[in-house]
Amino acid sequence: MADSHDIVTAELAEFLGAATPEAWVDAAADPAALPLMLIDHANCEKKAASTALAMLFRYEEHEQLTERLSRLAREELRHFEQVRRHMRLRGIEWQRVPASRYAAGLAEIVRRNEPGRLVDRLIVGAFIEARSCERFALLTPRLDDELGRFYGGLLASEARHFQHYLELARGFAGDELEARIDAIRTVENRLATEPDTELRFHSGPPA
Amino acid sequence: MADSHDIVTAELAEFLGAATPEAWVDAAADPAALPLMLIDHANCEKKAASTALAMLFRYEEHEQLTERLSRLAREELRHFEQVRRHMRLRGIEWQRVPASRYAAGLAEIVRRNEPGRLVDRLIVGAFIEARSCERFALLTPRLDDELGRFYGGLLASEARHFQHYLELARGFAGDELEARIDAIRTVENRLATEPDTELRFHSGPPA
Repeated sequence: MADSHDIVTAELAEFLGAATPEAWVDAAADPAALPLMLIDHANCEKKAASTALAMLFRYEEHEQLTERLSRLAREELRHFEQVRRHMRLRGIEWQRVPASRYAAGLAEIVRRNEPGRLVDRLIVGAFIEARSCERFALLTPRLDDELGRFYGGLLASEARHFQHYLELARGFAGDELEARIDAIRTVENRLATEPDTELRFHSGPPA
Repeated sequence: MADSHDIVTAELAEFLGAATPEAWVDAAADPAALPLMLIDHANCEKKAASTALAMLFRYEEHEQLTERLSRLAREELRHFEQVRRHMRLRGIEWQRVPASRYAAGLAEIVRRNEPGRLVDRLIVGAFIEARSCERFALLTPRLDDELGRFYGGLLASEARHFQHYLELARGFAGDELEARIDAIRTVENRLATEPDTELRFHSGPPA
């Protein structure tokens, strides 16, 4: 699966900063965790679509932004449908799985006032997509062929979404772009690497 | 444009009850109203997507329902992007256009408690799609070729969405289905045919 790893470019890895700990990969790739991980994955795709749609409503005067967000939301919904199909094929029944601390933790650092708020939301979007891409690449060689192929296929989308969010952030940010990326990275890296009480797609390693 | 009208089947017309008044068609097809109508149309597609997504979150335990709603939301978003493209090609700039009384008026009759609430929301969805289909068919022969072709193409989607919402409602409703359709039709027909202070895609005729 060398191809999968090639998509996690040096640029993406550098943007992320801290790599996902091996302990998270071991826990997430455990076959016993598969139902939980797939349900959480479906929830993440749904949440990504609704976040993009919420921004589309909030910033509807920006033509290029709304166009991009609409396409992103469509792609996340298609992935949601695909995850649900894989769940169905494996007889995994839906159950309520609360979200991890990750997205809520990132939302805390988003500035309250515009235009800083938009810039921060776009940077947060870039981090979520970049982390997803990194973790799909880590999981792909550890999963069975069918799921490995599916996750390998999602990698390219996540890498593209990361680029889109970052380009959009660049378009709206002034000089503060790098400083905001650094500030958000500090929070993101803590959430993704420090011990976590819950195992989720974006959680830290098991406590 | 006989094909367009054929899609507005007898079943759909019977479901709707009252037909759109000619005075609405005259006002909506007026070239001077085009920018307003296109912006409102874009808003409607966006709102349709977010309504489908809200239901997808609310009723996530129902597999077939969430699958359908996800596909619906994707299609509405694609239409949103297409309307925005037509606006761009015609140099129509985005501006804030408040929604008509229509969707808020329909929301008022939706029952507050489940499972009646789900049934009513699905029936309301069927009415919105059916009314959209009827109005696209009425407008298509009155618009220029380019927009007429676009609206003619949307007809089939709206007719399909109408069928999907109605099938879903049928699946969740007990004996009360016809009574709820009748009750919601009464409100819908009033909103769609009584004089309205604002011209919109789902408004009544000009006051």
